This record gives sequence, C-alpha cells and structure tokens, in this order.
Amino acid sequence: MAISSTARHDAIAAAARLFDRQGYHGTGLAQILAESGAPRGSFYFHFPGGKAQLGVEAVHAAAAEVESLMRATAEKHPSPAEMVVSLAQALGRWLERADYSEGCAVAAVTVGTGDNVALRAACRDAYAGWQELVRAQFVAGGVEVSRAGALSTLAISALEGAVILCRAQRCTEPLDQVAVELADLLAAVSLGQ
Amino acid sequence: MAISSTARHDAIAAAARLFDRQGYHGTGLAQILAESGAPRGSFYFHFPGGKAQLGVEAVHAAAAEVESLMRATAEKHPSPAEMVVSLAQALGRWLERADYSEGCAVAAVTVGTGDNVALRAACRDAYAGWQELVRAQFVAGGVEVSRAGALSTLAISALEGAVILCRAQRCTEPLDQVAVELADLLAAVSLGQ
Repeated sequence: MAISSTARHDAIAAAARLFDRQGYHGTGLAQILAESGAPRGSFYFHFPGGKAQLGVEAVHAAAAEVESLMRATAEKHPSPAEMVVSLAQALGRWLERADYSEGCAVAAVTVGTGDNVALRAACRDAYAGWQELVRAQFVAGGVEVSRAGALSTLAISALEGAVILCRAQRCTEPLDQVAVELADLLAAVSLGQ
Repeated sequence: MAISSTARHDAIAAAARLFDRQGYHGTGLAQILAESGAPRGSFYFHFPGGKAQLGVEAVHAAAAEVESLMRATAEKHPSPAEMVVSLAQALGRWLERADYSEGCAVAAVTVGTGDNVALRAACRDAYAGWQELVRAQFVAGGVEVSRAGALSTLAISALEGAVILCRAQRCTEPLDQVAVELADLLAAVSLGQ
C-alpha cells in the first residue's frame, strides 16, 4: 500500500503549491491527495502526522529548492551584487511562469500558521538557512563580517517582500527595482570595488 | 436589522485579523460573524458581495491603517532615514503586541488569493498607495527624484519581508537589522547629508 518515493515527493510538491496558492488553512487534505494522486491509506503510511507533517515537509522542500537556487547562483556569480541581481531575475522568471499565482511557500505558511509550533519552526529554520547562506556568500565576496548578517537579512527580506508586491501587481517591476538598489548598495560595501 | 456602522467596522476589523492569522481561504464567514458579533442577516445587508466584498474592505482598512501610521511617522520624522527606522519600530511593537500571530493583512490576502481579481486589485492599490506616499516623503527629504521610486519599493518590500521573518523567528531582529541598513542607505542618498 506504500506510495512510492516519487508519489511521496509528488504529495509534498502538491502541498507546497497549494499552500502557496491558497494558504495552509485554506488547503484541505482531500485536495492535496487529489492533486498528487495518492490514495488516502498510503498517505497516512508516509505522513502519520497528517497535514501538519506534510506542511513541515513542504516547507523543508521549498527551503531546499531556494537554497539550491542560491548555491547555483552564488557559484556562477560570486560577487554579492551580481548574485542578488541574478537571484531576483530567477525569482521573477518563476513568478512569470506561475502567472503570479505562486510565490514563496515558506512565506505562505508563515503567514497564517502562527499557532502551529512545528510549522513555525520549519519556517524559522528555512529563513535562518537562507540568511546564513547569503551571509557567508557576502563575506566571501568582500562584505565586512560585522555587516554581512544585517545585509543578508535586508536582501532576503527585500526579495521576499518584493515577490509579494509582484504578485499583487502582476509584474516583476518591484523585484527589478529592489535588485538594482540592493546591487548598488552591495557593490559599494564590498571591499575592493 | 441593519448593523450599526460600529458593527460594520467590527466585522471588517475581525476579518482583517482572521485573514492575517489564518489566511483568506482558511477563514470562514461563520467565524468572522462569531468574532464580530454581527448576525448573518444584517451582514448580507452591509456586505451583499459576501466574504469577497469583506475581503476587499478588510484590505482597504488595513491599507488605510498603515497609511495613517506612515503619515504620522513622516510628520514626526521628515528625514527619510529616521522615518524608516521609526516605521520599523512601530511595526516591531505591533508584532510584539500580537505575539507575532498577526502581521500585514495585505500580504496575507495577496498570498493565496491570486484567483480573485477584486482582492488582488485591492492589494495592488494598497501597495501602490504606500509606495507613492513613501516616494513623495523621500523626495521631500532630499532623495533624488529619479531614484526615490526604486528606494521606496526597496523600503516597503524590505519592511514587508522583515515582518514575515519576524513572525517566523518570533523576534524583531530582522526588522531591526533592515532598519539599520535602510537608514544607512537613505542617509547616504539624501541630499545635504
């Protein structure tokens, strides 16, 4: 009765997509099962904690996907300014492909699940992971260690917020504007520029 | 049977609070009515468009509340850097008072209601109003006109994103860090500083 690891992955991906489109509380288990094609019995075999467990795994999956994007971007663009611009462009393409109906599943779960300790912890860890990754990349790119943490928080907050503005405005202009200003700032504070 | 304008206001405030805590799709009309104390009959008298109309009015109310805060802050702190720091502090106090379970109702409605044209338009207009208000204040405070629009988008995106990070982390540190970096940037680009 066990669903395959592909089906398990499909359930997590469907959950992340639906939470992102209509919120965690607005998404029922029946809809997740229908979208992922998993039968209910095997679902509880893989997710004994039900929807809350699936929520945590969906946040982990979304966090890992963004982390991969960040690592790939940093490898291609070691300069902090160029990294942030490339990241913003990738997020803009993602929004366009989803016709602005999906953004960041971590933000979608954070907003509206404050009462669930496990979900909130998953979101907290997701942001902490991104912040540390970007901070380390900024330091490697010449930003002063004492300031890299705050600049990393600024970059992630600004990109996260801009994704929401883009969804409301159905265009990538907020991300484009944020990228230009962040790049300017990062170029100025990176040593040797 | 008509509910009073106070009860009407209460229904809108309850809706904004609930959308913010558990998402638009995760909030049923019955819960909004229970929280606001309005009977169902008089509810439809005031909100013939049902929950969707209430959603639009809740976004308008949340937008107006933030606009009032922005105007009051700008009046007290005309300098762009000080205005942004004061705004971030006010948002931090708001988060603490709500024990991090409420943030920005406009963001909460934007995330997860992409399929509703009227709701999305209300969110778009809310962001556009804030962007223009902050942009004008930046110009009045000495920021170059050509750059004030992008910097306004950066400030609003960063504050909006930082509110979400604060909710996930249950502390105001992301807002504090964003405020310091934005203030530094704005002080540098404001003429005469």
